[in-house]
Amino acid sequence: MTTVALDLLGGDGAPGVVADAAAVLLADAANTGLRLVVVGPVEVARDQLTARGVDLDRITLLPAPAGISMEVHPLEAVRDDAVRDHPETTVVVAARAVRDGLADAWVSVGHTGASVAAAVLTLGRIPGMLRPALAVVVPGLAHPVILLDVGATTVGSVGSFEQFAIAGAALARAVGVGDSSIGLLSIGSEAGKGDELRIEADLHLRSALPARGLHYIGPVEGFDVTRGSRAQVVVTDGFTGNVVLKSIEGAAAWAAHQIGLAYGDAGPARGVVRQAAAGTFAGGLVLGVEGVTVVGHGAGTAAQVIGCVELAQRAVEQDLVGKIRTSLQDQP
Amino acid sequence: MTTVALDLLGGDGAPGVVADAAAVLLADAANTGLRLVVVGPVEVARDQLTARGVDLDRITLLPAPAGISMEVHPLEAVRDDAVRDHPETTVVVAARAVRDGLADAWVSVGHTGASVAAAVLTLGRIPGMLRPALAVVVPGLAHPVILLDVGATTVGSVGSFEQFAIAGAALARAVGVGDSSIGLLSIGSEAGKGDELRIEADLHLRSALPARGLHYIGPVEGFDVTRGSRAQVVVTDGFTGNVVLKSIEGAAAWAAHQIGLAYGDAGPARGVVRQAAAGTFAGGLVLGVEGVTVVGHGAGTAAQVIGCVELAQRAVEQDLVGKIRTSLQDQP
Repeated sequence: MTTVALDLLGGDGAPGVVADAAAVLLADAANTGLRLVVVGPVEVARDQLTARGVDLDRITLLPAPAGISMEVHPLEAVRDDAVRDHPETTVVVAARAVRDGLADAWVSVGHTGASVAAAVLTLGRIPGMLRPALAVVVPGLAHPVILLDVGATTVGSVGSFEQFAIAGAALARAVGVGDSSIGLLSIGSEAGKGDELRIEADLHLRSALPARGLHYIGPVEGFDVTRGSRAQVVVTDGFTGNVVLKSIEGAAAWAAHQIGLAYGDAGPARGVVRQAAAGTFAGGLVLGVEGVTVVGHGAGTAAQVIGCVELAQRAVEQDLVGKIRTSLQDQP
Repeated sequence: MTTVALDLLGGDGAPGVVADAAAVLLADAANTGLRLVVVGPVEVARDQLTARGVDLDRITLLPAPAGISMEVHPLEAVRDDAVRDHPETTVVVAARAVRDGLADAWVSVGHTGASVAAAVLTLGRIPGMLRPALAVVVPGLAHPVILLDVGATTVGSVGSFEQFAIAGAALARAVGVGDSSIGLLSIGSEAGKGDELRIEADLHLRSALPARGLHYIGPVEGFDVTRGSRAQVVVTDGFTGNVVLKSIEGAAAWAAHQIGLAYGDAGPARGVVRQAAAGTFAGGLVLGVEGVTVVGHGAGTAAQVIGCVELAQRAVEQDLVGKIRTSLQDQP
């Protein structure tokens, strides 16, 4: 049995789409192994869920009076005292539910910065982890690709890249990406390309990752993130990763629009992009913290919330956090 | 009359596709204002062009025995002495043709690093330009977007971002993008988002660009590069820009493939991507050097070579270099 705490107030469509998702998840006969803890104002939660015919016996309602506004300044949201000053927001209460053992994982499709901050500050970093990483599973053409960091922090370092590779490889195994080759996002596939940080990191990873039993293939390029034919784990700093992720989303939307025009019917084109956004790509996992946290990115549809909960469920079942903890502690 | 020097040996399809492009360009009745200087081994050039029925009177053949191999190490290719050690490669001879007044612009669809190096070292930087930038015209949904730097160098600085904005705005006017709003590529649209460099640069650009009569809108995100609804000029460092450009290309290819499957006929989907790659997006302009240089990126088809030559022609006709020189010298 996996228990997932769900932020009722996260995302543009909240609380409706979150309640929609909860109803679908609990109606799904295949999901008898799932329990939900719905985090939000209790009256709102009760109204929204009963209106959708959800059996409240299968849900725990955890009171939290307010969500994090999307207008919260991101620097404010990630400051330690912001979480301490707002202890009753849904993201903090949901993260605390995991810390206190009420849930195995938590999910929010709301304010990414606030969710990452709540995860890091409430759950704490895994011992030895230099900085957390937000990891997404990009549905590449040949294979899915784990891209991290996509914005938990904005800086990278050689040591972080090594840890991102370790955590990303663990996630790749957890989501069934298979035997994972690791690449360092850069501007060419040859050694010696990239900025100073990448050149130094590439040299380090060439020896450090094989010593940990991981397969490092060297620098990869922007198009490798969606091709998926060279590396199944692509590591980068959170600034670059965030810009790349949003560039990919923008380019896919561009292509769907233009290609839809070429066929004279945009429906199927939009469907492809929508379907990608509802799968394992629906949310990012905060890696390097002591608990499973999935942060949705994108519009916040019910399908996306469902994708996020399923991703969280999978990470729990595969003991992703335990595996990252063990891998980090292994001295090569 | 605009004279463009063309690297016969640049790109995977050379010399055939370059000769194809030359034949099409000279057969085009609308292009009576274009002259070509074909740079390469004279015998090869003569054979390739006469086989395509090109009137050699309309072409100047400039001898250069060898192209830059795609295997040349990028660091080697951009080292000063690499260009000095290989003075007879097509890229150096073509750049020299512009420097010496034999041509108004030069085009290569070959080795990007070597072409940028040849442009910078042969033509020289415009006085005051801290570092050159490679700029591409991305066909955004609402408007085209000038993205720079996409890889002339791998570092950014506050001063460079200001100069990239100036040069990008001049290019926007030259290619008819219209009144250009300028954005700084970052990870959120609010002030205070981004890494240290972006936060510092954003503060500086807020006062520096309006003082130069330019419209700065603040930080923009990855998806704004293909949306084109917020900024028509997006400035970033060459590492980030290169990764973003390749991510966009990869995501468009991903979408074309997946969407093609959804319609059961991939032809129109591929056509949309192919068409985008042959327009003003066909090549990048090296900005900040004393002469028009267009470097093709991508597969190197004849359509792409034609797009590059037309882009070069436009930059010459609009006196892009002169306008950048004047703008840089203007003290706000």
